[in-house]
Amino acid sequence: MTETAPRPTLEAVAERAGVSRATVSRVVNGAHGVRDALAERVRRAVEELGYVPNQAARSLVTRRHDAVAVVAAEPETRIFADPYFAQQLRGISKELTAHDNQLVLLLTEGREDHARVGRYLAGGHVDGALVFSLHLDDPLPGLVRSAGVPTVFGGRPGWDDGRDDVVYVDSDNRGGARDAVRHLAGLGRTRIAHITGPLDQTSAADRLAGFRDVRADADPGLIARGDFTPVGGERAMRELLDRCPDLDAVFAANDLTAAGALRVLREGGRRVPEDVAVVGFDDMLPVAEQTDPPLTTVRQDIEEMGRLMARLLLRGLDRGVGAGNSAADAATEPDKPSGVVLPTTLVRRATT
Amino acid sequence: MTETAPRPTLEAVAERAGVSRATVSRVVNGAHGVRDALAERVRRAVEELGYVPNQAARSLVTRRHDAVAVVAAEPETRIFADPYFAQQLRGISKELTAHDNQLVLLLTEGREDHARVGRYLAGGHVDGALVFSLHLDDPLPGLVRSAGVPTVFGGRPGWDDGRDDVVYVDSDNRGGARDAVRHLAGLGRTRIAHITGPLDQTSAADRLAGFRDVRADADPGLIARGDFTPVGGERAMRELLDRCPDLDAVFAANDLTAAGALRVLREGGRRVPEDVAVVGFDDMLPVAEQTDPPLTTVRQDIEEMGRLMARLLLRGLDRGVGAGNSAADAATEPDKPSGVVLPTTLVRRATT
Repeated sequence: MTETAPRPTLEAVAERAGVSRATVSRVVNGAHGVRDALAERVRRAVEELGYVPNQAARSLVTRRHDAVAVVAAEPETRIFADPYFAQQLRGISKELTAHDNQLVLLLTEGREDHARVGRYLAGGHVDGALVFSLHLDDPLPGLVRSAGVPTVFGGRPGWDDGRDDVVYVDSDNRGGARDAVRHLAGLGRTRIAHITGPLDQTSAADRLAGFRDVRADADPGLIARGDFTPVGGERAMRELLDRCPDLDAVFAANDLTAAGALRVLREGGRRVPEDVAVVGFDDMLPVAEQTDPPLTTVRQDIEEMGRLMARLLLRGLDRGVGAGNSAADAATEPDKPSGVVLPTTLVRRATT
Repeated sequence: MTETAPRPTLEAVAERAGVSRATVSRVVNGAHGVRDALAERVRRAVEELGYVPNQAARSLVTRRHDAVAVVAAEPETRIFADPYFAQQLRGISKELTAHDNQLVLLLTEGREDHARVGRYLAGGHVDGALVFSLHLDDPLPGLVRSAGVPTVFGGRPGWDDGRDDVVYVDSDNRGGARDAVRHLAGLGRTRIAHITGPLDQTSAADRLAGFRDVRADADPGLIARGDFTPVGGERAMRELLDRCPDLDAVFAANDLTAAGALRVLREGGRRVPEDVAVVGFDDMLPVAEQTDPPLTTVRQDIEEMGRLMARLLLRGLDRGVGAGNSAADAATEPDKPSGVVLPTTLVRRATT
């Protein structure tokens, strides 16, 4: 810890400039009604003394911190292990920085720390929050709501409490899944399997729905549960090969799952794509390019999702949305918003 | 963004409890001198209404946020690409969580954003800061100092301005480097080269100093500049092989550098360790175990460094160190502190 000289006070600035405390306060907080010459004297005194306004006091007046919290409902270890978060944060960071807002990433060890995150959000340290990776039974949305800060969610929230004013950014998970399965069917594949993600997340549920849109009459044995990890993909692929040894295609709910499935197919002596064609989801780089063979997948623009989340939040804040107001009205118009859903595209590589 | 019900006010709590605003304020802020029965009524009203104290106002009284900022003098992209930061953050996160303090990671796109980080630190949003990955010409230490928050540095700061009250946690970089070079010399190697890190960081400068402690008379051609990345290691290794084709050992300033050097040695047809023995620094997993062959290296406990940084800061804060006071006095005793330097150990694998 470093020793620091006592911080110059508002009083010291007032004395140096030869004005009242109230005048200094008005100038520092950008209020109008102070004569130019006077304001100039105050600014010079502020600069000479190296005065830093006390933000805690100042925020009571201006109610703006130029800071945005990012909260992921995942432990710190997962945030740093999964490239998905890094890509989303990249988009958020670029957009916030372009508007000179500070990105405040609130890390946790797990769900038991979410109450503390809620306290920090309620504490008047940020103007708004970007929240992502929600699970259906997650306490975080409730905590964020009672913290009263404007919020944009990453991914369509799964709860349904009759509110239609939730702003979120999502990819077209259902449409992308339909494209993947139609692509496989178009190649003449008839026994198409699906490895799901964790179904307490809407992204996974929507991809399963897209699969069913195209294969309404699919044998239930052709659907196996995964969890968005390579290990989960391996486990599910083994199950599928046991149950349906004649399957000729697999749509995996994400690229990491597909990478695990590809390993098991290779071990089992199946040629990809000759015997079994495989499609993933995400186009997560470098994963999708480095599988053996390189993976056909559904691309979503994860960085752009992050950028758009930040943009919607800042736009809402610029329109004067504060805690306790309906951020929704300000974020989009003219109707109550809801989601912004980005399109996906099929990227064909060597597994189909 | 979600619409939120208006937040209950202090007044509403006072009305419900049938007490004055001042009484509510005293109870909420943990002050003494309120009768038990009265305090109990206030607490019940707080709970029933779901009242959340305004932290901005509250912090003016208590001056404690139970939140600690972490700042790395590297862009966001590097933080997520280099496992060193993830390991250090793991230790910090565990320690802060154990003491119910919120980890507030302040991300930037680059050095031009450091002034904004300084403003956030000065803004009364955190109790202290942990700052790491400093370069010699970095503006961050100065900004942190003028923000007036108690700070612990990760790694020995490189500036020398006559102050002896800087608290930092470091590894014994110089001693560890000496161990590495002595190990190589003990194996009978006589043409020992060194690939440095970026010499504007004290960790790299100290490792070079350790190399020179043992090889005071080393041919200057045996020293090449790297930058702690695999690509830098490759470049430096090519230079070294050009200049000194008869070299028989390399001490690389970190494991990533060693990984690059090993690739170039293999391409050049040198057998490791028969022709050229290699030692790294960090014992960064999984890097050090996955090189071909697995890497002999100097282990530093990066996670423990993070934990210790957090512990020193919290200890200082518990002793009542606030902004503008000498945190140093409180952090260690009885003398002015300075650094806590953790020992390193040589881990022998297959490259020596």
